[in-house]
Amino acid sequence: VPLRAGIVVTGTEVLNGTISDRNGPWLSERLREHGVQLAHILVTGDRPSDLRAALAFFADVDLVLTSGGLGPTADDLTADVVAEHAGREMALDPALEERIWERVMRVRSRVGGALEAALREGARKQAFVPAGAVVLEPVGTAPGLLVPVPGGPLIAVLPGPPGELQAMWADAVETEPLRGLLARSGRYEQRMLRFYGLPEPQIAATLRELDPPATLEITTCLRRGELEVATVFAPSAWGDYERLHAEIARRHADTLFSPDGQTIDELVARLLEGRTVATAESCTGGLMAARLTDRAGSSAYVLGGLVVYADEAKTALADVPPDVIALHGAVSPEVARALAHGARRRLHAEIGIGITGIAGPGGGTPEKPVGTVCLCVSTGDRIEEQTVRLPGGRADVRERTTTIAMHMLRRLLS
Amino acid sequence: VPLRAGIVVTGTEVLNGTISDRNGPWLSERLREHGVQLAHILVTGDRPSDLRAALAFFADVDLVLTSGGLGPTADDLTADVVAEHAGREMALDPALEERIWERVMRVRSRVGGALEAALREGARKQAFVPAGAVVLEPVGTAPGLLVPVPGGPLIAVLPGPPGELQAMWADAVETEPLRGLLARSGRYEQRMLRFYGLPEPQIAATLRELDPPATLEITTCLRRGELEVATVFAPSAWGDYERLHAEIARRHADTLFSPDGQTIDELVARLLEGRTVATAESCTGGLMAARLTDRAGSSAYVLGGLVVYADEAKTALADVPPDVIALHGAVSPEVARALAHGARRRLHAEIGIGITGIAGPGGGTPEKPVGTVCLCVSTGDRIEEQTVRLPGGRADVRERTTTIAMHMLRRLLS
Repeated sequence: VPLRAGIVVTGTEVLNGTISDRNGPWLSERLREHGVQLAHILVTGDRPSDLRAALAFFADVDLVLTSGGLGPTADDLTADVVAEHAGREMALDPALEERIWERVMRVRSRVGGALEAALREGARKQAFVPAGAVVLEPVGTAPGLLVPVPGGPLIAVLPGPPGELQAMWADAVETEPLRGLLARSGRYEQRMLRFYGLPEPQIAATLRELDPPATLEITTCLRRGELEVATVFAPSAWGDYERLHAEIARRHADTLFSPDGQTIDELVARLLEGRTVATAESCTGGLMAARLTDRAGSSAYVLGGLVVYADEAKTALADVPPDVIALHGAVSPEVARALAHGARRRLHAEIGIGITGIAGPGGGTPEKPVGTVCLCVSTGDRIEEQTVRLPGGRADVRERTTTIAMHMLRRLLS
Repeated sequence: VPLRAGIVVTGTEVLNGTISDRNGPWLSERLREHGVQLAHILVTGDRPSDLRAALAFFADVDLVLTSGGLGPTADDLTADVVAEHAGREMALDPALEERIWERVMRVRSRVGGALEAALREGARKQAFVPAGAVVLEPVGTAPGLLVPVPGGPLIAVLPGPPGELQAMWADAVETEPLRGLLARSGRYEQRMLRFYGLPEPQIAATLRELDPPATLEITTCLRRGELEVATVFAPSAWGDYERLHAEIARRHADTLFSPDGQTIDELVARLLEGRTVATAESCTGGLMAARLTDRAGSSAYVLGGLVVYADEAKTALADVPPDVIALHGAVSPEVARALAHGARRRLHAEIGIGITGIAGPGGGTPEKPVGTVCLCVSTGDRIEEQTVRLPGGRADVRERTTTIAMHMLRRLLS
């Protein structure tokens, strides 16, 4: 039986939708690596009663991870509520208080007066820990905690800022009693197949026909125009998985672009090694360049890009002939091609990407409705071109367009 | 007493962290508009037992909203589990099946053979509804449901794709019995103050001193370098809120940039009306242009931008003199200024934004560690300049840099 875990994400701002939660998904992936089955992610506000209810909900799992509510202000009460839930008293750890204070001072070297007093009070608040808990050293200023609940799960209390949480997790998994708990867990494999251009009902029909054995837990997911098929299985079911994989790959060879789970961004980054690329984009307004430069090391192949929103900029920066715009319109395959070529020429790049479209909500016409996007990826000799009509709002159209361009790059380069 | 609600987000892909949930936060905001207090957002996988536990967790609230699990495939079982939870049988609605089939065919006008059979089967599966439930017409192909639980909450079953869910919500709130339920709810006001450059402990100290009355529910939240103070209150507490607001505004006038809750993006968009702006960015790689063009209507003031990753591109596209790069380094206030001026000149824009920095993880030096970013916003006459050292990973540095540039724009223009 695999270990079961629950994640509690605290914070009114997450519950309110003010900020989106990045910790739940991140911790979920970490748990999967350790073969721990995640039951639920529960987002709760800062009301103590709701946090209590959240902890009570997870009475039957082996491990609970909490994120957030460890800050210096009065509405940060995760440590207090966890202590109460575990039947443990809160006590000041004076040595910890000093270490927190040093960290606070490292960030703000010169303060005084009211601010210093406020910061001092915050540091002291953060140094109260439940009796018998294991303290995880702060990454920012908040310490984490490992709190065993008698007759219940181990609760790992982690800070809210994703950078702090992620650094502290690396520490937590090496610290008892979490280390021992994770060692009890079985190992599970997860394999991912990614498809581009495969409708979900078609993979569903394939899966019904193949009727895979119960040793394989399979989920399909449509995501930003790509279809993902994830399979989780115990190492003993490797043979089952390999048979399934081979059959799916045989039937859907035309749309299966990633048999090993690599993302399109990873694939394209690899294909761009030793080459150079530049962009000239209109409707995506820099998003394509931003996606390409999102990866560390992208400066090796991204030379730069042009954001040519105004028609004059298309001509002045990317050498799109004004009469091409006048004849075919700014959103046309001809302009996309001119943009791709302009990007190559102006940045002395091997590969140029040209994008022009109508992201909406305004600007659509009967012939070219909102969502119409013309793309061109070119090496000069070889060209991939496409005109699409994308559904959804402005943000969807812009993001989806970058995914299409990534797949055009992949086809051109492979 | 306000109505209480819970949100259940289904889908292994959300639980797994493969995709991030957009529906929970969006529905949370809608509930707040209706004065409904949200207790928790519960993310659950596609295992029926976990979905059952999720519904059981919300036995005491007035309203449960579910998203996802309404697709045509076998692992989409929200409707079945909700029906079982409510003690209602599932039955095929043949007229609904035809309407779904029409919608499927509208998207794919020409299919045949195995795919058509698979799509047909999917449409039939989606047309099974719990007895006594109110059907919400599909936006995509999945119908939604309003399912009253005897002695329990009303469950509104909504589809997973955010565009579909949002369109269906507009329909749902006008449909009985949800309409009647929401009419019972009280109205609550929410007001937001946004600060830039105010440490969280300082606002915490202010709030402790002011000791606001219990009629005001106040939360503070640090978000991408800005601090937000949200206050929720019944209309009868308007006076309390106005007194609190006035006092906070008096004490923190220097950092309170948005007394009416407007975001920095909204503020800057307004300030840019009737002006023109262009970017020249290195480490943000297009993200600054993408942020400015994220808003509908931004083509009125964004002329375009230059993404100048390579040093040669900085010179060729933005006229940064090679000797300035050689003398001061590519990451220097001098280069940021040259980029801002190059953007203005090349795009004939009033305002130029220049950004150069080290987003990491590589490229840092002892004098210029990872996170060092030089920014310049210029109108030619007036200039705002700043060099910062940002904490966090590559994505944090890039995103945070765009926020700093937005505030520099605000200061320059106001």
